[in-house]
Amino acid sequence: MSIPSETNTQVLLTSRPNGIPQAEHFQIVETAMPALESGQFLVRNEFLSVEPAMRGWVNAAANYSDPVPLGSVMRSFAAGVVVASRHPAYAEGDRVMGMLGWQTYAVSDGSTIRRKVLEHDLPLSLSLGVLGINGVTAYFALTEVGEPRPGDTVVVSTGAGSVGSAAGQIAKLMGCRTVAITGGPVKMQMCRDEFGYDVAVDYKAAGFAEALALACPDGVDVYYDNTSGPISDAVVRHINKRARIVICGTASISNWEPWPSGPRVERHLLNKAARMQGFLVWDYEHRYEEAISKLACWVRSGSLRYREEILDGMVAAPDAIAGLYRGENFGKRVIRV
Amino acid sequence: MSIPSETNTQVLLTSRPNGIPQAEHFQIVETAMPALESGQFLVRNEFLSVEPAMRGWVNAAANYSDPVPLGSVMRSFAAGVVVASRHPAYAEGDRVMGMLGWQTYAVSDGSTIRRKVLEHDLPLSLSLGVLGINGVTAYFALTEVGEPRPGDTVVVSTGAGSVGSAAGQIAKLMGCRTVAITGGPVKMQMCRDEFGYDVAVDYKAAGFAEALALACPDGVDVYYDNTSGPISDAVVRHINKRARIVICGTASISNWEPWPSGPRVERHLLNKAARMQGFLVWDYEHRYEEAISKLACWVRSGSLRYREEILDGMVAAPDAIAGLYRGENFGKRVIRV
Repeated sequence: MSIPSETNTQVLLTSRPNGIPQAEHFQIVETAMPALESGQFLVRNEFLSVEPAMRGWVNAAANYSDPVPLGSVMRSFAAGVVVASRHPAYAEGDRVMGMLGWQTYAVSDGSTIRRKVLEHDLPLSLSLGVLGINGVTAYFALTEVGEPRPGDTVVVSTGAGSVGSAAGQIAKLMGCRTVAITGGPVKMQMCRDEFGYDVAVDYKAAGFAEALALACPDGVDVYYDNTSGPISDAVVRHINKRARIVICGTASISNWEPWPSGPRVERHLLNKAARMQGFLVWDYEHRYEEAISKLACWVRSGSLRYREEILDGMVAAPDAIAGLYRGENFGKRVIRV
Repeated sequence: MSIPSETNTQVLLTSRPNGIPQAEHFQIVETAMPALESGQFLVRNEFLSVEPAMRGWVNAAANYSDPVPLGSVMRSFAAGVVVASRHPAYAEGDRVMGMLGWQTYAVSDGSTIRRKVLEHDLPLSLSLGVLGINGVTAYFALTEVGEPRPGDTVVVSTGAGSVGSAAGQIAKLMGCRTVAITGGPVKMQMCRDEFGYDVAVDYKAAGFAEALALACPDGVDVYYDNTSGPISDAVVRHINKRARIVICGTASISNWEPWPSGPRVERHLLNKAARMQGFLVWDYEHRYEEAISKLACWVRSGSLRYREEILDGMVAAPDAIAGLYRGENFGKRVIRV
């Protein structure tokens, strides 16, 4: 029940990017340890999350959440352990995950906590990945928006990514035929060997459109889209009657201001009575535990595999988002602090 | 129970348009009256339907139905009276509506009949409009895909059209605030005075985008889209969280080959967890009577108003579809034969 005497290392957003945030938009600072008021507790973060959506959080354009204010700690999910508490519901030693920011220590009154991490037999870092937002996103976006049925062909863009790989494996567990779209031979093999896709297609290779057509001889029933852009345009040409396109991310578009153009989807959606629907995981907050209990069960049994890429130290943070967009990571990127 | 002795006047599709079918793509011919085999009956068509979707039926590109073969009678809905029958379920005098084609007489074995028209107190032509495909489309597309809730703002493009005007009025009956997008002052007034929209916005006028924004101060919950194109691009900028965009038609795009470009919708759908979904009325065939019984009730009570434009004689047929796309009609266009 004592505040550690060291300082708090924080990563601040110091300028606002137009597009993808780069290292230059952040600054690492040392600040004094905060005092705890009644009803608060202190978390020592062990892992900080790095994810594509953070691009949207720092941009000024209207988005699904208010932009991170300049000069404040970068918003992020983090997982850690309660080290001091003046809050009745949180005790020292509790493992928690929440919107704790890119910093070593975070004060919370509970409102920033997403959940207590109860899977003590599994690594804490998983609460930021396959047992966190990534896994929960894949689970609800696929099942609630994608609505896959046994025998459906499910195509996943960024099929090797932390969300995509979970979506592909859950679709497979639901009896679907799964097709990964990914970049390069290493990720192709990972998709087939680790994540169990029936086929992997390389969007960087010549003849991508033809390879995709060959991979989907019966058309596409569910398209789990993390990219938008030309990859999606190619997939949309193959949708079946009543197909469901889940818009979960737009990783291939680096900037939405001005609004980029592409082939219009309206006629395709009309001719197939198909739908395209955006997914925000926040809408499923009340059902997190339902998803995580299933995901944890699959992880324990080995039927849901994951990759993590652990960067060491706060110094890795400023460039970490840009690195995601450079496509350099294999698996869910987290920072160990 | 005798075949009339006159000839059958038919409109054939004689060449295939790339885009909107014009008068030159059709030919009017006189053919011999067909003989009736057992299990068949003869319908004297009284009204032929003209609708925007017929563009898709004659084009070679893959669509939701096979293209009309060259040299055959133009596919269309028509309403008429059984004048001779060797079919146990159809008697002389029965009023029927179905896919009977642009011709004076049609032989059917029942498979081309959509329904017997039982609303004897209402004009037969309505079975091609507000009590036919148009009304049924508006009803199911709005209620099943649009899912309006009381208080929602519902925007309808081609708000004065035969589908749009029905959709707008049904939304109003469901407790929504309704906004019509239409072209020119005459249709604007029609939207407000006849079809009860709260606001009408002129897409042809300067300042359309601003007028639309003013018309939707609380954003757009349901967009019933019959146009696609720049009109839709303007509406999409105002969608609310969990908005539903119903793709019912694409009247503003004259040609989908090559695939036209426009602003990408993915990010808007994602940020708002909104959906865009195509609607094909054929998917609701088993529920036609449910819709028509409600629509007829509203028509009788005066709470669902409609406009018809009746062209006289088969000579009007060849140019009739092109005329729709020139925007010259007020109300559901039918041909009296």
